[in-house]
Amino acid sequence: MSYQNPVFIPGPTNIPEVIRKACDMPTVDHRSPAFARIFKPALAGVKAVLGTRAGEVILFPSTGTGGWEAAISNTLSPGDTVLAARFGMFSHRWIDMCQRHGLNVEIIETPWGEGAPLAAIEAALAADASHRIRAVLATHNETATGVKSDIAGIRKAMDRAKHPAMLFVDGVSSIGSMPFEMDGWGVDIAVAGSQKGFMLPAGLAILGLSPRAVAAMDTATLPRTFFDFRDMMRTYAAGGYPYTPAVGLINGLATSVQMLQDEGLANVYARHHRIAEGVRRAVAAWGMRPCAASSDLYSDTVTAVVVPEGFNGTDIVKLAAEKYGMAFGVGLGEVAGKVFRIGHLGSLTDAMMLAGLATAEMCMADLGYPITLGAGVAAAQDHYRNSAGEAAKAAA
Amino acid sequence: MSYQNPVFIPGPTNIPEVIRKACDMPTVDHRSPAFARIFKPALAGVKAVLGTRAGEVILFPSTGTGGWEAAISNTLSPGDTVLAARFGMFSHRWIDMCQRHGLNVEIIETPWGEGAPLAAIEAALAADASHRIRAVLATHNETATGVKSDIAGIRKAMDRAKHPAMLFVDGVSSIGSMPFEMDGWGVDIAVAGSQKGFMLPAGLAILGLSPRAVAAMDTATLPRTFFDFRDMMRTYAAGGYPYTPAVGLINGLATSVQMLQDEGLANVYARHHRIAEGVRRAVAAWGMRPCAASSDLYSDTVTAVVVPEGFNGTDIVKLAAEKYGMAFGVGLGEVAGKVFRIGHLGSLTDAMMLAGLATAEMCMADLGYPITLGAGVAAAQDHYRNSAGEAAKAAA
Amino acid sequence: MSYQNPVFIPGPTNIPEVIRKACDMPTVDHRSPAFARIFKPALAGVKAVLGTRAGEVILFPSTGTGGWEAAISNTLSPGDTVLAARFGMFSHRWIDMCQRHGLNVEIIETPWGEGAPLAAIEAALAADASHRIRAVLATHNETATGVKSDIAGIRKAMDRAKHPAMLFVDGVSSIGSMPFEMDGWGVDIAVAGSQKGFMLPAGLAILGLSPRAVAAMDTATLPRTFFDFRDMMRTYAAGGYPYTPAVGLINGLATSVQMLQDEGLANVYARHHRIAEGVRRAVAAWGMRPCAASSDLYSDTVTAVVVPEGFNGTDIVKLAAEKYGMAFGVGLGEVAGKVFRIGHLGSLTDAMMLAGLATAEMCMADLGYPITLGAGVAAAQDHYRNSAGEAAKAAA
Amino acid sequence: MSYQNPVFIPGPTNIPEVIRKACDMPTVDHRSPAFARIFKPALAGVKAVLGTRAGEVILFPSTGTGGWEAAISNTLSPGDTVLAARFGMFSHRWIDMCQRHGLNVEIIETPWGEGAPLAAIEAALAADASHRIRAVLATHNETATGVKSDIAGIRKAMDRAKHPAMLFVDGVSSIGSMPFEMDGWGVDIAVAGSQKGFMLPAGLAILGLSPRAVAAMDTATLPRTFFDFRDMMRTYAAGGYPYTPAVGLINGLATSVQMLQDEGLANVYARHHRIAEGVRRAVAAWGMRPCAASSDLYSDTVTAVVVPEGFNGTDIVKLAAEKYGMAFGVGLGEVAGKVFRIGHLGSLTDAMMLAGLATAEMCMADLGYPITLGAGVAAAQDHYRNSAGEAAKAAA
Repeated sequence: MSYQNPVFIPGPTNIPEVIRKACDMPTVDHRSPAFARIFKPALAGVKAVLGTRAGEVILFPSTGTGGWEAAISNTLSPGDTVLAARFGMFSHRWIDMCQRHGLNVEIIETPWGEGAPLAAIEAALAADASHRIRAVLATHNETATGVKSDIAGIRKAMDRAKHPAMLFVDGVSSIGSMPFEMDGWGVDIAVAGSQKGFMLPAGLAILGLSPRAVAAMDTATLPRTFFDFRDMMRTYAAGGYPYTPAVGLINGLATSVQMLQDEGLANVYARHHRIAEGVRRAVAAWGMRPCAASSDLYSDTVTAVVVPEGFNGTDIVKLAAEKYGMAFGVGLGEVAGKVFRIGHLGSLTDAMMLAGLATAEMCMADLGYPITLGAGVAAAQDHYRNSAGEAAKAAA
Repeated sequence: MSYQNPVFIPGPTNIPEVIRKACDMPTVDHRSPAFARIFKPALAGVKAVLGTRAGEVILFPSTGTGGWEAAISNTLSPGDTVLAARFGMFSHRWIDMCQRHGLNVEIIETPWGEGAPLAAIEAALAADASHRIRAVLATHNETATGVKSDIAGIRKAMDRAKHPAMLFVDGVSSIGSMPFEMDGWGVDIAVAGSQKGFMLPAGLAILGLSPRAVAAMDTATLPRTFFDFRDMMRTYAAGGYPYTPAVGLINGLATSVQMLQDEGLANVYARHHRIAEGVRRAVAAWGMRPCAASSDLYSDTVTAVVVPEGFNGTDIVKLAAEKYGMAFGVGLGEVAGKVFRIGHLGSLTDAMMLAGLATAEMCMADLGYPITLGAGVAAAQDHYRNSAGEAAKAAA
Repeated sequence: MSYQNPVFIPGPTNIPEVIRKACDMPTVDHRSPAFARIFKPALAGVKAVLGTRAGEVILFPSTGTGGWEAAISNTLSPGDTVLAARFGMFSHRWIDMCQRHGLNVEIIETPWGEGAPLAAIEAALAADASHRIRAVLATHNETATGVKSDIAGIRKAMDRAKHPAMLFVDGVSSIGSMPFEMDGWGVDIAVAGSQKGFMLPAGLAILGLSPRAVAAMDTATLPRTFFDFRDMMRTYAAGGYPYTPAVGLINGLATSVQMLQDEGLANVYARHHRIAEGVRRAVAAWGMRPCAASSDLYSDTVTAVVVPEGFNGTDIVKLAAEKYGMAFGVGLGEVAGKVFRIGHLGSLTDAMMLAGLATAEMCMADLGYPITLGAGVAAAQDHYRNSAGEAAKAAA
Repeated sequence: MSYQNPVFIPGPTNIPEVIRKACDMPTVDHRSPAFARIFKPALAGVKAVLGTRAGEVILFPSTGTGGWEAAISNTLSPGDTVLAARFGMFSHRWIDMCQRHGLNVEIIETPWGEGAPLAAIEAALAADASHRIRAVLATHNETATGVKSDIAGIRKAMDRAKHPAMLFVDGVSSIGSMPFEMDGWGVDIAVAGSQKGFMLPAGLAILGLSPRAVAAMDTATLPRTFFDFRDMMRTYAAGGYPYTPAVGLINGLATSVQMLQDEGLANVYARHHRIAEGVRRAVAAWGMRPCAASSDLYSDTVTAVVVPEGFNGTDIVKLAAEKYGMAFGVGLGEVAGKVFRIGHLGSLTDAMMLAGLATAEMCMADLGYPITLGAGVAAAQDHYRNSAGEAAKAAA
């Protein structure tokens, strides 16, 4: 593995120079106003990225997994029912967590490669006349399959079913990279992590809470202390923290949200789409296809590439690491071996992405894949050079 | 607040240059062997620092508070009884967490400034003929009062009472700075954090587990996923992690444990004692005294200085920050206002400590304390120059 | 030597965090506009610090010594006469350089500890009816003795003598720390280095040139290429450089001059004076005195402390390094052994300076000096706490 | 320009993470043993890289240009004759410098694109019966044209002519990247810079001196002080420096030479050759050719690519910077516009190089060059994947 190559795992991302420097800071007293001067702009910036005015933002020194746990343990009680579709490793893991916390999960099994099944969700809600379902859990971007789901559509389904459940969204691998409208979509809890669209090292769970989610914490009886929203909200008011915060990461987050807003969120999303589209054209040029079942499901942050029959996608990842010092993602769970994954989120230039595609090609050629060296690169080059412009410049 | 001044809060500590650089690293694939090459030496080094051969080490991207929660949620079930003494803010918080998690806490109220009451603990255990008490919780170094407790003594009391309870120790502000013998003292779970004796930024909870603690996780029914030992232990075996680890902090930890072992743990402890003793001599020269009730309780990582009647210790902390850009710790809980705290853990030179003492003196003079400028500094200087030697050099 | 202690050598100084980060940058193409965007503000800021509107600024990847050489080799020819007073190691070295370059140096020998002898300079110029003297060389702040000279006074002496010589000033250890008025004082060449008042690592010679100095380069016949002003001025016009520049240092310089201007130069000078005065009060409390012959000569960037008879100042410096990991400066040349030097330039807080004084006291006590521990510290504390205010805050 | 893209200028190179961290250090006292502990291994390592046991190494806080000046000013006197061939911008500049220093340069004009003309050199030396020629100046790797010269061949020509001249070699863009044998080739002065094969920022001139070169300094009368070998050699003996050294760069150099030796110099050279060969295959696939007149002249550190009639190579460089944030080198002097240059020295992975080639292709397509997107990339991929092995791994 070379520190000089970019990484193409679907997070953590490549960390921009300025963010690395913001995270690497001397110790400051987290009980002093110096901390508040770092913390408050970070919180405000996250709200902007989440697309919420009404919501609260909470930061835990944790990861996306911790963010999921905070979401359920602060709003639900043992025996409560939640509704969730399973269509990838990360939707699966959240379901598993709910079960381990004593929740009753109504699971809609959905083929991997598809997104959240709106009709089935609506049907399940409509069937729940007694409103046992307390929350709908949705994975916005399923990192395992490179599939994005229609969160606005879920909200509409809930509205059509006139169901009062809350809507909890795992936006770990979408927020900051793909359009997300917490208020607009009626999301009650949005869960993100520092190491994806925010381009930071792992170590922060980032949550947005709607007023309804905040209210739910008063009645929830699942035990929590480290992840307790109440301690957080009480101390945040004064710019403080209930225990020792990860000051460097929060300083990096303040920088990150400023960068995203300076670029303009629409430009950030357009940039991700443009880079992703180049990857998809390369995949097509290789005669292969994304795992996502249809083009409207294509994720702009990660592409799970289905490898031809007779090949094991994991071999590409191993070879890339060993021979070329480059990191891609393996297939997980049901699609283990069947895909390899190219992460393309965070700060990436055309040149970086082409380096990744060229390396993937070398690995495939080494392994006997029926591809032509340079073919995918050429397809991506063609797209990049013709679409360069404001979106291309934004990456700098 | 100046980034150029050392901090004298009782953690996070000043971060040595080499550790800052180890933490500040480019993204590596945490599913690759590159991560295992960082992770395994970190785990091994922590075992050495904890003083355990039989134990397991678990790292969470979290803090000491998360470490406490992991300790109880992995080993206990709702309604279980634990025994704990309350004699400071951090022992209080752990008790509060247990109660919020549905545990029955048998509390031995103890004056702040005293340590864990061995006789009372032994009595409580002896009285528990039915062995309802599943664990004894002990705060090794109460950061609020600067008091260390006799953990070996607690184990002896447990043995004398022939009680099978487990022994859980909060060593957050002691481990890596003061002698700690996990195996020798029969500790079942030791909880530490990255930002104290390990000299890292906050962001890692570090736990040592005895075989008994590991066994307890099979029967514990408190819910946990993020903090689940089982997921950790299963993935560690292959050098992996159940979710995205904080790779930079773990790389810093690998550096830290190497530094501590290169210096020699005995030397590390002697260095902390020597620096602390200088602080205590300064306090005496000011005509003041530590909050700790007797000299055998003096912590070598933090001194809570009792201020004279009519003064508010918090004013010193505020003035130091505002006027001199230096961070000390305020009094917490019962001793709020009655003390101010000088942290002296981690990597400190004589010169740094003297800068802290000299600044505290200026603040006290500014606030009208009956002290003589330079008096405390002189007492510390005298101690430092006469005790310099291997311990002094070790700080470099 | 500990990286954690501040240094008290009279340069290089302690480097503020933000400047270290500015210097540590990835490679950029020095022939691209990206370089010009760094370079131009750096040049403009240096002009402000030098106090010149009419002058040009030139930066060499070199040191102050190189700056001296550039000054003479670009303006003078073999056999030319210059006038210089020798009263310390750095005035001596510049004279030596002139002689090695074939110049005829008219030397005014002056006791070390005194400043530039205005009357003798005026007399020498008055006696030079044929105007053989092409330049007067003056060391603004003699780092060896901690003596500042009256540059404005030299200009007045030149004017009174109606002598057309140019005035070249070594401001290496004064510029950016003590008042300097290039235009106001009629300085033709000002020489500075990156590692003093600009708080950067060593590696840049920084020169200001008056229009007369620029004109002189057309007739000067001393050979030079690396140091040739002509190549520099020709390429600067387009934001370029005649060879590979030290981009990181120039980026750091851009940051430094912005910091100095944000603080306000008058505040920067007041801050240095205040810190220096605390050192001088400590020296007096030790029963010792600065090497500078009178208080009007006291440098605000370095104090050469005369040690008592029977002691060798170099021993303090050695002991401080070996036993306490702290750096002071030894005596040089005529005052070797007779003094030790405390550098107090660049970014220093009260606490840092007190750490230095406290450590010097420990060394002196160790060596048997007749001082009282804490006495000098107390004198400085008294000064600092009573003079704190805007100047104190400025250090942050 | 994006900080995230690698650079492909022919120096400064991309800086490996570990070297950036070595350069970015706190201030240490350069008069203390702490400096000597950094300095001595750096000097020893440079000797190994230069291939000298008999020689001395001198480091100036300067650049390659300063290194040239030091070479001539320390060994020659005004009016001395030197012999040099001119076949590129850097050989031209050295000749120009000699002339500006009053030397008599016997110039062998040679077409750009060719290397040092061995026969003409031998003839010139043979014709110099009186041995007026004091030194032969040779540019090992002409960065402007991407041409390497046969230094061993020059030495043989000198030997055949039985001429006692010294041999001075500009190895700025070859040393550390291409085979160099100072002792084996009878080189008297070798000049290198920090920002090429040593992978550091610009700021150090690095010279190797044979005993003959050292002896020559006693009789040379060209003036020099900053660049005086005598001051350097006198102070180095004690681990010191005649003025303030660039400590961070020297620390980085110590790291660099250790890295080069750990990898093995033969492996370093093989790695550069392999990367360069991929570039040349890409150039051929584009239907273009290197500026170097024949394949034995191909430089392994930079390729000057001759653009087709009707195109201006500078446009590629401008477009790459503006549109894709990537840096290549323009043509200089006689070949301005006729070539663009791809630097491929220092630490480069296959993936980085492919990113550069892919970007160059996009620029050429944008400008209407008759190339096929992906064609050059494919040719390089083919070479890299078939030649990967120890040399490929060495880049990590």
